Amino acid sequence: MAGIRVGVVGGTGYTGVELLRLLAQHPHVELAAVTSRAEAGTAVADMFPSLRGRVALEFSDPKAAPLSECDIVFFATPNGVAMGQAPELLEAGVRVIDLAADFRLRDVAVWEKWYGMRYTAPEWLEQAVYGLTEVNRNRIRVARLVANPGCYPTAVQLGFLPLLERGLVDTGHLIADAKSGVSGAGRKAEVHILFAEASDNFKAYGVAGHRHLPEIRQGLAQMCGNPVGLTFVPHLTPMIRGIHATLYARITREEDFQRVFEDRYRNEPFVDVLPRGSHPDTRSVRAANLCRLAIHRPGDGDTLVVLSVIDNLVKGAAGQAVQNMNVMMGLDECAGLEQLPVLP
Amino acid sequence: MAGIRVGVVGGTGYTGVELLRLLAQHPHVELAAVTSRAEAGTAVADMFPSLRGRVALEFSDPKAAPLSECDIVFFATPNGVAMGQAPELLEAGVRVIDLAADFRLRDVAVWEKWYGMRYTAPEWLEQAVYGLTEVNRNRIRVARLVANPGCYPTAVQLGFLPLLERGLVDTGHLIADAKSGVSGAGRKAEVHILFAEASDNFKAYGVAGHRHLPEIRQGLAQMCGNPVGLTFVPHLTPMIRGIHATLYARITREEDFQRVFEDRYRNEPFVDVLPRGSHPDTRSVRAANLCRLAIHRPGDGDTLVVLSVIDNLVKGAAGQAVQNMNVMMGLDECAGLEQLPVLP
Amino acid sequence: MAGIRVGVVGGTGYTGVELLRLLAQHPHVELAAVTSRAEAGTAVADMFPSLRGRVALEFSDPKAAPLSECDIVFFATPNGVAMGQAPELLEAGVRVIDLAADFRLRDVAVWEKWYGMRYTAPEWLEQAVYGLTEVNRNRIRVARLVANPGCYPTAVQLGFLPLLERGLVDTGHLIADAKSGVSGAGRKAEVHILFAEASDNFKAYGVAGHRHLPEIRQGLAQMCGNPVGLTFVPHLTPMIRGIHATLYARITREEDFQRVFEDRYRNEPFVDVLPRGSHPDTRSVRAANLCRLAIHRPGDGDTLVVLSVIDNLVKGAAGQAVQNMNVMMGLDECAGLEQLPVLP
Amino acid sequence: MAGIRVGVVGGTGYTGVELLRLLAQHPHVELAAVTSRAEAGTAVADMFPSLRGRVALEFSDPKAAPLSECDIVFFATPNGVAMGQAPELLEAGVRVIDLAADFRLRDVAVWEKWYGMRYTAPEWLEQAVYGLTEVNRNRIRVARLVANPGCYPTAVQLGFLPLLERGLVDTGHLIADAKSGVSGAGRKAEVHILFAEASDNFKAYGVAGHRHLPEIRQGLAQMCGNPVGLTFVPHLTPMIRGIHATLYARITREEDFQRVFEDRYRNEPFVDVLPRGSHPDTRSVRAANLCRLAIHRPGDGDTLVVLSVIDNLVKGAAGQAVQNMNVMMGLDECAGLEQLPVLP
Repeated sequence: MAGIRVGVVGGTGYTGVELLRLLAQHPHVELAAVTSRAEAGTAVADMFPSLRGRVALEFSDPKAAPLSECDIVFFATPNGVAMGQAPELLEAGVRVIDLAADFRLRDVAVWEKWYGMRYTAPEWLEQAVYGLTEVNRNRIRVARLVANPGCYPTAVQLGFLPLLERGLVDTGHLIADAKSGVSGAGRKAEVHILFAEASDNFKAYGVAGHRHLPEIRQGLAQMCGNPVGLTFVPHLTPMIRGIHATLYARITREEDFQRVFEDRYRNEPFVDVLPRGSHPDTRSVRAANLCRLAIHRPGDGDTLVVLSVIDNLVKGAAGQAVQNMNVMMGLDECAGLEQLPVLP
Repeated sequence: MAGIRVGVVGGTGYTGVELLRLLAQHPHVELAAVTSRAEAGTAVADMFPSLRGRVALEFSDPKAAPLSECDIVFFATPNGVAMGQAPELLEAGVRVIDLAADFRLRDVAVWEKWYGMRYTAPEWLEQAVYGLTEVNRNRIRVARLVANPGCYPTAVQLGFLPLLERGLVDTGHLIADAKSGVSGAGRKAEVHILFAEASDNFKAYGVAGHRHLPEIRQGLAQMCGNPVGLTFVPHLTPMIRGIHATLYARITREEDFQRVFEDRYRNEPFVDVLPRGSHPDTRSVRAANLCRLAIHRPGDGDTLVVLSVIDNLVKGAAGQAVQNMNVMMGLDECAGLEQLPVLP
Repeated sequence: MAGIRVGVVGGTGYTGVELLRLLAQHPHVELAAVTSRAEAGTAVADMFPSLRGRVALEFSDPKAAPLSECDIVFFATPNGVAMGQAPELLEAGVRVIDLAADFRLRDVAVWEKWYGMRYTAPEWLEQAVYGLTEVNRNRIRVARLVANPGCYPTAVQLGFLPLLERGLVDTGHLIADAKSGVSGAGRKAEVHILFAEASDNFKAYGVAGHRHLPEIRQGLAQMCGNPVGLTFVPHLTPMIRGIHATLYARITREEDFQRVFEDRYRNEPFVDVLPRGSHPDTRSVRAANLCRLAIHRPGDGDTLVVLSVIDNLVKGAAGQAVQNMNVMMGLDECAGLEQLPVLP
Repeated sequence: MAGIRVGVVGGTGYTGVELLRLLAQHPHVELAAVTSRAEAGTAVADMFPSLRGRVALEFSDPKAAPLSECDIVFFATPNGVAMGQAPELLEAGVRVIDLAADFRLRDVAVWEKWYGMRYTAPEWLEQAVYGLTEVNRNRIRVARLVANPGCYPTAVQLGFLPLLERGLVDTGHLIADAKSGVSGAGRKAEVHILFAEASDNFKAYGVAGHRHLPEIRQGLAQMCGNPVGLTFVPHLTPMIRGIHATLYARITREEDFQRVFEDRYRNEPFVDVLPRGSHPDTRSVRAANLCRLAIHRPGDGDTLVVLSVIDNLVKGAAGQAVQNMNVMMGLDECAGLEQLPVLP
């Protein structure tokens, strides 16, 4: 098969380098350009020695890069960049996957409130498809623009999905207690994510409100057809990769919940429902495009506990983006995503 | 002031060595004996080089040690040991603090179910006082036998206490999502707590039922005068020390919750209510006898979120034991417990 | 190409699971059996959830397993097992790669001294080829039995090799200061490698003598044709994977040392000489079959410093074993070993 | 005893907060001012919650702070600040301890080369005493200005000291392979010390030349009365605190080296020579003002190996500074420095 020409805008962050790792190993991809204004002229492998000998490109200036000749372009840029630069590519017929938040929220006012910027691409927002593959596969297939989900939203939505689609729990009082590895905060020079700050330490943050909250609520509402009440508390945990979401829901209709999850995800290549009584650990999905789930009902009470783990950089970002690319391009959905988790 | 003669039974685990660290620095303590059957004859400082030059004792055989001449003896032994050995000391007039679970649960049948042993000291169980100092200070003052609380129970109970005492939340559906550092699992040669297993990893465990669940339920029930419904999910997080409990409760009566907490703990030397909007991190209490709390009400909804952090080995074990000793012996409650947290 | 039938004896340790990860992704391998006496009957993926959906085998009893029908069998067993069990397979025409130390040392007396067992397979020892591929490739091609090198020996020998082959340094006073991640100590229930012991900590061990010392000395002596004097100090560092060897040698003959290394390794697919002035980090080879090297001459003095990094479980164990298998079986040497390092 | 009035200039870094932790617990210290231009007006305990309830001061502007009324002022500032601001205080009769590098090197030209600034206080440099207490105690007693040693220089010099004072090794070819926790890089927003960069990773840095090299060489030269040849390779290791220096020296004169070390340090309260055969770990000095040493002679060869561990923030910075203050002020040298190491 002739290679798909792929461009990456903004390859210097953690989702960027992870995307490069996956694309460089993808059997059908030809990496045409990786851009970074700040690093233009630097060899990609000088910045990320893990790619030495395998990625020969230099970072190029976004303006000079042959992005419009690509079949598909990924934006691994800070929030607000893709809404400015993607439209020109889209109009040139290039398909786009944005790994940032620019096209995730349907409601412009909500977006502007949480992201603190004026929204500049409302016409494209309407065409964007939310890239939670397990929910929107058919629409992704034909999408010109895919909004790749956030990491927390992926772990939380996949964990609640079967319950909400079937109307089995009280959607007014859902709780998502989520724990993320530090790479989730990005490759940014900030004190609170220094090793000497974040190591041997644990804390909650953003309890009053986190940008992923409206994204999760929007997704859950779509699943059940109604607005949901959700308390979402993210925590920073001293590991590099991984999200563990512990989800709590009050049962409103009896079912064999284990069975409900197994049925829903039976044909999903990247969602794995563990046997009853399991406790997935984040390392069981490290560096792999997988979500593993376990369902518990402690003491046979009326509270259901769902444990959901992903690698925030793979199923929570770059891996899911490649999965979406495969769907959009008519490739095997698993192409380039079959590396086994790295354990220990 | 003449020194209090103190004995420690079973000083080879993490609560044991932490107890020795605190006792060796206590201004009014004379350490008379540290026992360990397995390590009898070994210098304590050979096993724990951190104590070199400061603890001159050898581990002695429990039978040979002058425990009955002590004013007070700590048991830092596996569950089931203290109920066998403490009665003889108690009858000799020695006061006892058990850091294990032997005297924590009021109901023998419940204890036997969760700990899988026959209970052999029911007559002493009745006299035992549960050593959550902030709740039982007056009874601890005169107690002959104190059952020092577990680490999770300390963090969770201190976090729910003001709400339950005042009847402000739905006690039928409390949720405690707790995260512990790995030292909480003890100094035991087990594969799942190896560095290469527990590092860069995160997982829940014991969702179906953890031994601290009945202890927490008992304590919460006492606070509100009724049985409570509690979902308790513990997690293992890759840090040495620290517990972060994230507590969720449905509001049933309006109050200024921040104020409620500040009022309740105003005179407590070891509980610190942080300003509104705070997120305590576990390192802010590392190696110190402190519980720090923050209260949140996300989106002004009906769910209250309490964040509670302790060092599992200090306020969650050895420090609280020393606090209880101070109370029992009529010393300044803070004696020997004023070391500042170690940060970073 | 028809698959090669492969057996793994002792797949429950870290080198075992890493071998399974690599073999399960190898394009030409059919995994025929994984044995473990202790775990016979357990699904491999139940013990290592990272392999769920990809390795369908159960651990089987070594006696019942169809090992003699395999083309090649790996021993990932404790020292002393392979010398007992491999001969029968070898006599049946099965080729064997031992990842333990049984066939690494040429001198039986030295082996018995360092490993504290009687040596029982001297006739096979003579036929064994030491599997440092970059040194013995041609002999490995035709070997029936390959002794896969230890992790420290791989990092240290590849770092000294070009200097010793060319006679450029004082071989009487070599120094190897090596740092290993904790997985190097194996998946064993021992206190000193618990998370709470090894995390946030650093120490040397075995300074008086480590089992890898005679192995390294033997290899270095072969390179230069004479016995060498080597001071080898291993250290335990709080990371899961990775070895960083810092090597010191006194220059005895001037050369462009950077050039010497580049020339020696130009055609080696798994050894990467970094540009002048580089400092390789262990994560740049994490989960990949690579050794990266950098050469320094501080202050233009007479002491050369070589920095050598590998992943102890890959180029230091399972990856090198697969590399040797590829060579023995006439496959592309890189088959199944092209996964990129995982960073961050 | 009436309290000593103490000021701290620049209390927002890791050495600053560690200094505050120690000073706040010191029995004879009254903390008069903590300055920070950037944080003026912020409560110290808001920035460092570990100090809540114990340090009531706000950061004050250096100009407004009552520093000239202090008995002693610590500079915990970036290099180059103290040489500008200390002279005015010194002239006002305030004694000064600089924890940065401004007064460590005797030779202005060398200082300017390594620190890349023009040197502005040469007249004070002559009066400065290098604060390695174990070497210069008597001069420190009467010093107006003490240059507190760097962290690596403390660990390395204490490890070589007995050998060099007695002329027992080849001083032309000393090797110091040193490993530091990440807090040694300071509390600076830089990418390379992010958790996701430095965790689960190990690397050397500055092999071509590190600022501590001339400081160590100067100190070693003073010990043996001649210039020394030293190869110094620092490494970054994934732990918060701690330095482990592994030192190599060629023996030139036979002695009982263990005895030499024990004799030299017998009366030193903060240097602990371990029994023969020991391997000190960094956690055995965590959070304590201690250097622990072990001496090895592998294989009875001619190379001596010294293992030296300190906590870089305590004996390598703030603790040694307090030790020097005690000496300068005629206090018990151990006052405020008797906290036991925190283990685990």
